[in-house]
Amino acid sequence: MNNARFAEILANVRVVLVETSHPGNLGAAARAMKVMGLSDLRLVNPVCGIDAEARARASGAADVLDRAVVHGSLDDALAGVVLAAACTSRRRDLPHPAYTPRQAAPELLAMAGSAPVALVFGSETYGLANEHLMKCRWLINVPSNPEYASLNLGAAVQVMAYELRCTLDDTPLQLPSFQLASHEEREGLFAALEATLVSIEFLDPAQPKRLMPRLRRFFARAGLEKEEIAIWRGVLGAINKSTKR
Amino acid sequence: MNNARFAEILANVRVVLVETSHPGNLGAAARAMKVMGLSDLRLVNPVCGIDAEARARASGAADVLDRAVVHGSLDDALAGVVLAAACTSRRRDLPHPAYTPRQAAPELLAMAGSAPVALVFGSETYGLANEHLMKCRWLINVPSNPEYASLNLGAAVQVMAYELRCTLDDTPLQLPSFQLASHEEREGLFAALEATLVSIEFLDPAQPKRLMPRLRRFFARAGLEKEEIAIWRGVLGAINKSTKR
Repeated sequence: MNNARFAEILANVRVVLVETSHPGNLGAAARAMKVMGLSDLRLVNPVCGIDAEARARASGAADVLDRAVVHGSLDDALAGVVLAAACTSRRRDLPHPAYTPRQAAPELLAMAGSAPVALVFGSETYGLANEHLMKCRWLINVPSNPEYASLNLGAAVQVMAYELRCTLDDTPLQLPSFQLASHEEREGLFAALEATLVSIEFLDPAQPKRLMPRLRRFFARAGLEKEEIAIWRGVLGAINKSTKR
Repeated sequence: MNNARFAEILANVRVVLVETSHPGNLGAAARAMKVMGLSDLRLVNPVCGIDAEARARASGAADVLDRAVVHGSLDDALAGVVLAAACTSRRRDLPHPAYTPRQAAPELLAMAGSAPVALVFGSETYGLANEHLMKCRWLINVPSNPEYASLNLGAAVQVMAYELRCTLDDTPLQLPSFQLASHEEREGLFAALEATLVSIEFLDPAQPKRLMPRLRRFFARAGLEKEEIAIWRGVLGAINKSTKR
């Protein structure tokens, strides 16, 4: 595969940093991205600004910082994305499908061949909150030393970007044979599903328990296609109509 | 392979930094090493000291910095090593065998199973001089963007250390184990789902088209668990109750 096609695919890989607190990490992430051919950086509610330290650490990748888009919510940052993968340290308490970068890379790149995908990184201190994790379909866990697994944020971006480039270098790409739903379509369906479950009194908004996370997990494992969104919206529409009679 | 054996092998991987000029990179290298289970750091004629910035960037890996050995020559730093690999940006003018980290990792680790090996990194500005390169048996080139190949030193150490650990640890991550539904439970759910879809007039039994096969395909991709069967049966029950009111 030639470098122009590499560039096209990697341009579809969005790096989303949530609530980053150290400017140096913004710069390191930008440099890590550019060195591997990534360029689409999104900052969700950054706690720090793009300052002199960020620029120094970005070195020749200051253009990636300059073009970074700041968002007020993770949903905004994931608009148009067909797959969001949360890059976290190993957590066995989460029910998402979890992969190593190496396991995740081929399918992630195959999707990026035709539509945007996102790698989502949490803050240096707190990682990603559950509400953020719930919006991601996959977890990616970087293998690490169980006695000291504290991967620096910039280093995590570097590892992921390296893995993607490295995998492109020697993997024949196959496109998914179906059209995946976008983040908005998925979130729209979950909102409609939740509303219907409330209206049929299966879900008590005062005591939601773990119902929606369980259902999100189920849908995440399947991976929703555009046509399937239409089917489920149709089912919800029919339920709503039928309960109003 | 268990973690104790990982630790033994990775303890034989020496990281040699030649004429490093930025303390932050010393710290970043130490952290990158420890996160992946490496610990043997050697500094050849460092231009900077291990200062507060180095310690801050090392974070919980300050012990690796503290145990770093300073050498007056690359020869000293390579004493006892059976294979030294120079990690450089791509240079086609050199006669060494050149590998990507992924290509190099298996053999490097095989050697490290019984004797020390070394990864050698040059200075931020000048890389490795020819006299240093000549002392290394292999070149390792990290794949990168041809338009901006300036990998940060700490990031280069991170990529190499990650690659080694990842190659050691290629056992797939286990998904949390849940109890899968039985064939009968799945079929029972599909029958109940179909009946409900008919009763809310979304599915016309006279003209069923491809609706149930599409839904079966969707559920098959997710793989139904026992608890999820219970959730979906609960949802169907709530729909049926709510339409009879």
